[in-house]
Amino acid sequence: MKVSKKYYTCDSQEKCQILESGLQLSPVTIAYETFGKLNSDGNNAILICHAFSGDSHVASVYEDAPEDTAPGWWDFMVGPTKGIDTDIYFVVCCNILGSCMGSTGPGSINPATKKPYGLDFPMVTIGDMVNSQKQVLDYLGVKKLHSVIGGSVGGMQALEWCVRYPEMIRSAIPIATTMRHSALAIAFNEVARQAIMVDPHWNKGDYYHNPGPDLGLAVARMIGHVTYLSDEAMRRKFGRKLQDKEDFSFNFEANFQVESYLRYQGSKFAKRFDANSVLYITKAADYFDLADNVNTEESLQDLQGSHSKFLVISYTSDWLYPTYQAKELVQALKRTGQDVSFCEIEADCGHDAFLIPDPRLSKLIGGFLNGIENS
Amino acid sequence: MKVSKKYYTCDSQEKCQILESGLQLSPVTIAYETFGKLNSDGNNAILICHAFSGDSHVASVYEDAPEDTAPGWWDFMVGPTKGIDTDIYFVVCCNILGSCMGSTGPGSINPATKKPYGLDFPMVTIGDMVNSQKQVLDYLGVKKLHSVIGGSVGGMQALEWCVRYPEMIRSAIPIATTMRHSALAIAFNEVARQAIMVDPHWNKGDYYHNPGPDLGLAVARMIGHVTYLSDEAMRRKFGRKLQDKEDFSFNFEANFQVESYLRYQGSKFAKRFDANSVLYITKAADYFDLADNVNTEESLQDLQGSHSKFLVISYTSDWLYPTYQAKELVQALKRTGQDVSFCEIEADCGHDAFLIPDPRLSKLIGGFLNGIENS
Repeated sequence: MKVSKKYYTCDSQEKCQILESGLQLSPVTIAYETFGKLNSDGNNAILICHAFSGDSHVASVYEDAPEDTAPGWWDFMVGPTKGIDTDIYFVVCCNILGSCMGSTGPGSINPATKKPYGLDFPMVTIGDMVNSQKQVLDYLGVKKLHSVIGGSVGGMQALEWCVRYPEMIRSAIPIATTMRHSALAIAFNEVARQAIMVDPHWNKGDYYHNPGPDLGLAVARMIGHVTYLSDEAMRRKFGRKLQDKEDFSFNFEANFQVESYLRYQGSKFAKRFDANSVLYITKAADYFDLADNVNTEESLQDLQGSHSKFLVISYTSDWLYPTYQAKELVQALKRTGQDVSFCEIEADCGHDAFLIPDPRLSKLIGGFLNGIENS
Repeated sequence: MKVSKKYYTCDSQEKCQILESGLQLSPVTIAYETFGKLNSDGNNAILICHAFSGDSHVASVYEDAPEDTAPGWWDFMVGPTKGIDTDIYFVVCCNILGSCMGSTGPGSINPATKKPYGLDFPMVTIGDMVNSQKQVLDYLGVKKLHSVIGGSVGGMQALEWCVRYPEMIRSAIPIATTMRHSALAIAFNEVARQAIMVDPHWNKGDYYHNPGPDLGLAVARMIGHVTYLSDEAMRRKFGRKLQDKEDFSFNFEANFQVESYLRYQGSKFAKRFDANSVLYITKAADYFDLADNVNTEESLQDLQGSHSKFLVISYTSDWLYPTYQAKELVQALKRTGQDVSFCEIEADCGHDAFLIPDPRLSKLIGGFLNGIENS
């Protein structure tokens, strides 16, 4: 099984997107990948929503991109006979609006100026991302989602799907996510944004024809990366191990392995990701509030009378979206009468645990999806 | 009771400081303040060691600096009849070596070049800081420390004092500190250092005659500041409260109060602190390892046979140096036969809790110090 990245573009004025900010965005292109086959009733689809820096390449390898041989970011989960079984389900994954991996974002060409948008790109919300995904599913002929699944910012999209299009949703699996960012999560995002915006190469977002803010972006990624790990995992993986020598260098080179690891992660990210997309997506995550109509005219009340089933998953060592926030979500969903299962998985690897191959997660998701099919 | 900042300078070649790196530093000036009177036996002294960005101004107000009317950083703790009672004890607080608040640091003039050291300043360790404080105490005629007390990086100094000069120490109170930085703590320090070093105004540390890396320094402080708070305290203090308006601005201005607070803290810090001092002091903290002779030829074994009493204090919501690390310290001290009391204080305000007026802390420290006197 190999896959191709495809693109859906909406440029008809009436269909194109009115954003939550009130601004209009056109054209909108969404990169997406599909796995398995849609049945004739259009109701065996599963939408997977990726996290902050992810993309549509959720599984398999590309058949038409020989230079990109890496399997998708959730390849252990998605495929024939896997937790999300592509022999049974038609799986769709879209790159989010505002990103830089094929969908329209701040690095795309602004038709009004013929130059990249930069900061002229309108602010987008999790709701706007969901609306653009809805257009792709309509185009593909999907009538009903067997499930909408996502971790982290992907989990926010899964939840937003449930309040915007409850009639389309049979089940949802929000993983390592939250109903709304805490002050701590906003704080980390704001520090990351500042790290980018103080880099003079950022140039108020207008850097696409010059060297970009790679150094600031690398620092932003280092901050993010620390929040995706955990104290325990970092002790296990790095502890106080030194990089090359048996003794300290007594200078500002990377002495400890953890320093060198973070520097590497930062500069690697700066090569592949657009700094402005970091700004837009982190802001969308900060704005997201599932039950607050400051953010959305929809709210949890829209779930009343829907019959979606929820599987909420958290991780013991996730301190970005800790288990207490998952429990708040479970309680909020239950108050609207939803059928909610909750599972806290014991894992020491922090927020990013859902990205690490784990048969427990595959079985949990596979079992839940089978249960939905049978009900 | 008012106070003056004083300066001790050592510039005699034989007394001056051989650093742990093997390099020599001369002259060394240490800014210090004293409170109360040293008795004729020179044994009623208490040394207070300040944290990362602190200074010698631990209590009272200056008698000779009319523009600086702020009371010292631990004024609630230090003074007549307070937890650390200056009617009884002769209290000394020194600005640490490598800092920028009066003691020799990277912003001081290098006698070899007549210019500020910048990165020519040698790396200093917690042990080097302690040795320079020892010279000040010798100069003042202090024979014995009734106690050596410090929080955070100040707690590291207090512990280092106990292994370097056990014969001088009657008791020690390490607060909200650790025997050694975890990978997580090193990671946060490294991200802060990178934030400074990627600012082009940093200019490899040579910025003293030009505008400095204020933007990078502000980001570094924002990172630090988040680690000094806690999820709980930030929820209580900020939650998702908006700054000015009732709705989102849909731009990259500070929408949430927590964003605006962090920006303010960052830029305020950049006005008062030297970026190179942040680099040197964070590195010293990362290198510190109480029981590892990679760091110091001294070790916990040097405590064997000493009769110091320890009061180890941690805070429930401190996730920079969590209670489990305080317990590791307690166990390590006990293994060498020390008399150790341990207290975990319930507080939701994170690592910085020890800087916030709290009668529980004053009574705890006051009671412990009285007990030492009577033994």
